Amino acid sequence: MQVFVPFAADAPKTRLSSALAADERRHFARTMLRDVVDAVAETGHDPRVLATGPVSVDVPVTVDERSLDAAVNDLLESHFDASGDDDPIAVVMADLALATVTALDRLFEANGDVVFAPGRGGGTNAFVTRHPDFRVDYHGTSYLDHRAIASSVDATLGVVDSFRLATDVDEPADLVEVLCHGDGRTREFLVEAGFELVTADEGRVTVSRTGRVG
Amino acid sequence: MQVFVPFAADAPKTRLSSALAADERRHFARTMLRDVVDAVAETGHDPRVLATGPVSVDVPVTVDERSLDAAVNDLLESHFDASGDDDPIAVVMADLALATVTALDRLFEANGDVVFAPGRGGGTNAFVTRHPDFRVDYHGTSYLDHRAIASSVDATLGVVDSFRLATDVDEPADLVEVLCHGDGRTREFLVEAGFELVTADEGRVTVSRTGRVG
Repeated sequence: MQVFVPFAADAPKTRLSSALAADERRHFARTMLRDVVDAVAETGHDPRVLATGPVSVDVPVTVDERSLDAAVNDLLESHFDASGDDDPIAVVMADLALATVTALDRLFEANGDVVFAPGRGGGTNAFVTRHPDFRVDYHGTSYLDHRAIASSVDATLGVVDSFRLATDVDEPADLVEVLCHGDGRTREFLVEAGFELVTADEGRVTVSRTGRVG
Repeated sequence: MQVFVPFAADAPKTRLSSALAADERRHFARTMLRDVVDAVAETGHDPRVLATGPVSVDVPVTVDERSLDAAVNDLLESHFDASGDDDPIAVVMADLALATVTALDRLFEANGDVVFAPGRGGGTNAFVTRHPDFRVDYHGTSYLDHRAIASSVDATLGVVDSFRLATDVDEPADLVEVLCHGDGRTREFLVEAGFELVTADEGRVTVSRTGRVG
């Protein structure tokens, strides 16, 4: 199965700007992308990157400068035009730094014409579709919208309940998850950049940065 | 299996104070507790509440005014003193408003002397132990500490990767998860209190409150 990983090549990950400088955020985003691509490859499926601009990875890259919705929907349409109607295709976000083979296999092997891995905050972090008419709309509570879209084309729904796939890394609090649960390059990047876990008042865990790299 | 649900009977859930008044937070916490207890009961296991003070629920309540660590550790010790060495016992937090039978079954049926459901932010939202010497320490990055404690007593470890069990409802952003994914009394409470999902700038989803009850 082809598994597309959309990547905003010029994305600044601005919500991480209190933790990482612009160059670091650019490097960090590419590090997460490589971890996700590797995890997909380890499942035995076929990772591809769908990027808004050139990006250096060891898998095929399709460049499409349009919006995420337009690019993904074009991909879905081309795929089902070219293949059998029930040949699946998957889309997995590039900032799922905790994604593992086990978690992705649960998604890829779940039953349903369309199977979702919901993200925190109403998002859709990954999906598989075997239905030719499912299309995406990532704005807002995309998880609920995507369920409605799938139902509107009479697709059966599946949902994978995964903390790892629900965790997209967008803001400093998410770095706690990478340090606690990650085991790839992304965690290594943070450790080398001097991030560590600290327990703040009230027992809440956060990150602090003791050094600088680069 | 006995499944204990610790509950701070006087806990104000202060991090929700921008969203809910003190009385509402009290009611909200009890509503989540009832949803969790019901989900545990539906698994066929035996829910019990371990509370810091009296609380009205339809299952046995043990009152222990001490800290969470002291109360849970006393429970574990008594349990393994009284039972066979490998008779399991579980502890599930009372604010896991998204907990379902399916998610809890994955926890209860997973392999391992000690099986964890990690929570966001380094927490431990639920665990099962079949090992007589495992003890808890909930302060700080308890998930990592609990793994270390389990390893130190030569317990084999299991981990359940569940977004539902990772989501403890502590702050306003967590209400988004309840409105998106909940289907119990807790979601109903929020809907009746006038909460609804709104898409803010940058596409992030949050909650707004359009009415007041009670």
